[in-house]
This record gives sequence, structure tokens and C-alpha cells, in this order.
Amino acid sequence: MQPPSRSAICLLSGGLDSATSLAIAREQGFLCYCLSFDYGQRHRVELTAAARVAAALGAVEHRVITFDLRTFGGSALTEDVAVPKSRSDVQMASGIPVTYVPARNTIFLSFALAYAEVTGSQDVFIGVNAIDYSGYPDCRPEFISAFEQLANLATRAGVEGTSKLTVHAPLQNMNKAEIIRKAMELGVDLGITHSCYDPDVSGQVCGECDSCILRAKGFAEAGIADPALHLRPSLP
Amino acid sequence: MQPPSRSAICLLSGGLDSATSLAIAREQGFLCYCLSFDYGQRHRVELTAAARVAAALGAVEHRVITFDLRTFGGSALTEDVAVPKSRSDVQMASGIPVTYVPARNTIFLSFALAYAEVTGSQDVFIGVNAIDYSGYPDCRPEFISAFEQLANLATRAGVEGTSKLTVHAPLQNMNKAEIIRKAMELGVDLGITHSCYDPDVSGQVCGECDSCILRAKGFAEAGIADPALHLRPSLP
Repeated sequence: MQPPSRSAICLLSGGLDSATSLAIAREQGFLCYCLSFDYGQRHRVELTAAARVAAALGAVEHRVITFDLRTFGGSALTEDVAVPKSRSDVQMASGIPVTYVPARNTIFLSFALAYAEVTGSQDVFIGVNAIDYSGYPDCRPEFISAFEQLANLATRAGVEGTSKLTVHAPLQNMNKAEIIRKAMELGVDLGITHSCYDPDVSGQVCGECDSCILRAKGFAEAGIADPALHLRPSLP
Repeated sequence: MQPPSRSAICLLSGGLDSATSLAIAREQGFLCYCLSFDYGQRHRVELTAAARVAAALGAVEHRVITFDLRTFGGSALTEDVAVPKSRSDVQMASGIPVTYVPARNTIFLSFALAYAEVTGSQDVFIGVNAIDYSGYPDCRPEFISAFEQLANLATRAGVEGTSKLTVHAPLQNMNKAEIIRKAMELGVDLGITHSCYDPDVSGQVCGECDSCILRAKGFAEAGIADPALHLRPSLP
């Protein structure tokens, strides 16, 4: 348990992974400064979920940085490339998926670093996961570790030796069912999270993309009904 | 000399350092994809200079990514904190200046990484300088080297082993006079570059900030008159 006055930057997408990561940061006694990104993602509705999650989990602050990764293109998550549907575990596990967004986590962590420096935070939480997202280069433990090293060379605090930044990836080695159980244990209302790469204009999940399939599989394995299925119609 | 078909991402601020860095990339045979940032800087006029420089130096493409670092605050370059004026070399050399923008180069390089991945570029050029900007943590050689390591863990190409990203900082060990001489040698029209942290609304340089002082000192040492002083009134 950290002393309660320590603050942390918590990257928050609005999905269940980042919500659970935030809940873990809070459980560890951190005052949480949440950070989300409006980067041209087709599942932009997740930002509404992020705001709900930040409020529900008592974030001190929730900032959204806006930029447009479509300026470069290159991913099914930002471009007019079809999001793959109804893929098997084997298909998901093979190679880097088209839903990979070039350098996304590097960019996200860079902004987290700026936010940490301004708020005097020495800790950053990111909900990456090396099990379900083994195909994404920037979800791997060696990437997180390399970023931490960079961060400690990049900032005022690092240079002056006054503090060291730690990047926490508490879900790194958990599968989706374990993440869901952890969320339940911490009292996170997963009904307010949003996990879909290809929702319709009203925010309805597609039920067939990798994100939807992994979520459904996780709830099934955890033996829990997904509360989002029931709460969705009444969400703002 | 690289084969002429290789492309590089060139970070371009509109100042004389990044213009020279771009000219060096071109001299080495790279097709140059230029990248600038509209991040809430008070010297936003530099973006007009960046566009002029990209066009003058034959860039294949010039993209501008917009985001607002004022969301976090924390620097005289983005906030309502006074830009320090008429400082001596000794004052400039002591510690990290208030003009340091938290994590700026980490953010810039992260976007360059995304752009490199999308364009298939294996090279990034950045005009950082460890001599005049020794107070900025993210201008140091060890920072650049750490970013290169991160980049090769962060991307599809790095993971698949199909290519390796190199971050070039060709001005790293040059002082301002040497950079100016190099620019002259490469035929760069420094009259179209813009170096000032605190220009007035019309884009007129202040003549008193660190950037203006370093530029003036560099031209004096190089024994060359700054062409910008004469060209400025007719600039768009």
C-alpha cells in the first residue's frame, strides 16, 4: 500500500482492461489522474465510457488529448479498412493484427510522461496485456521496460535524480477471465465499460470483432454474465 | 550516400536547426517526409516557416499533427509563464530552463515512429543539439539512443525483424555557428527559418529570448549576416 498522497497517471480507454488497471492503482493508494485519447479511432464512443469509468472510480482528474492518427493512416482502427470479424483464437494469435495502430502505445505513454512530469507523479498505469494481445508489439513486457528506461532519461526529474518513473502494467500476465475476476473483486462496475473495435453509430457493440470475442470469452470463462449486455440500453 | 529510394521522417520545427537537419537528410539521398507539430506553442508562427522550409528543401510530404500540450501546462513555451529574456551563456547553461516542455521530444519522436511505420521509413532525423541545449534532458545523446532502442521494440518491423529504425541527430555535437556553416554549405536559405520563443502576433522575433540570442551569437561566430533580419518584412 502506497502512502495515499502519491499520485499516478492512469491511461484509460474505457474498456474493461484499463478500468481494472485504474482500480488496481486506486487500491494501491494512488490518487489517479486519468488520461484518454481522441485519436481518430472508429470506436470513439469508448471516450464516453472512459469518462464514466473515471468518475465511478474516483479519479482526481480526467484529461483527454486529441490528435488525429488518420493523418498517417495505417490501421483498421482508424482507417476505412474493415475490422476483422469472428476470428478464432488461432487466427488472433498469428502475427500482428490489422487492428494494430502504429506506435499507439508509444504515443500514449509519451503523453502520460508529460502529464506525470507536470503533476509530479512518479507512476504510470497502463492496462496492456501480453496474453490476449500477444500480437501487438507495444503490449509486450520488453516494450514497457524500454519505455521506463527512456522515461528516466527524458525528464527533468530523471536528470536531476529527484525521482524515478515506474510504468505499471498490472494486467500484463493475466488472461481476460482473471482480469474480470480482479475487477469484480475490486468492485468495478464493468457494465459501464465499453469493448468493441467496431461499434455502430449509437455505440452498440458489434459482437464479432477481436475485442468483443475476447470479452465474451473472458466472461464465459470467469462464469460471470457481462453486465454491459443488460445495462447498455440505459447508458448515456 | 544512401540509395535514393530510401525515405526518412524529418522532424521540422521551422527553426534553423531542423532545417539544417532536413538538408542533411536530403544530402544523404533520403526522400524526406516532414513532420511538424501544432502543440499550443506560443511561437506557433514557426509552423509557417516549417511549411516554407519543407517546400524549399523538396520534401515529399509535410504533415502537421495537432494536439494541445496546454492541457497539461508546465512550460513557458505553452503557458502564460514569461519567456526569460537577455540571459547570459552562464544562465542558459545552468539547469533545466523554464522553456523546457515536458516530454516534448519523446512525444515528437513517438509520432515520427508512427509516421515511419506507415511510410515504411527506417530513418528519423531530429535536429536536437547537445551543445546549446544541454539543459534539455530530451536533447541528450543517451535519450536519443534510448528512444531508438524503444522504437525497435515498439513496432511491427522491429518485432518481425524486417527492419531497424535509426534515429539520426546529425547536429548533436555541433555548435550554432557550425550548424549555420553547414546550412550554408548545403545551400539552405536560412532567411526562411524562424527562431524565437516569443514572437509578437505578426511573427516578429523578440531578439531577447534564448533562441534569438543563440541564433544571433551563432551568426556572429560564423561571420555571416542573418538573412532573416533582412527578409523578414517580406515574408508571408
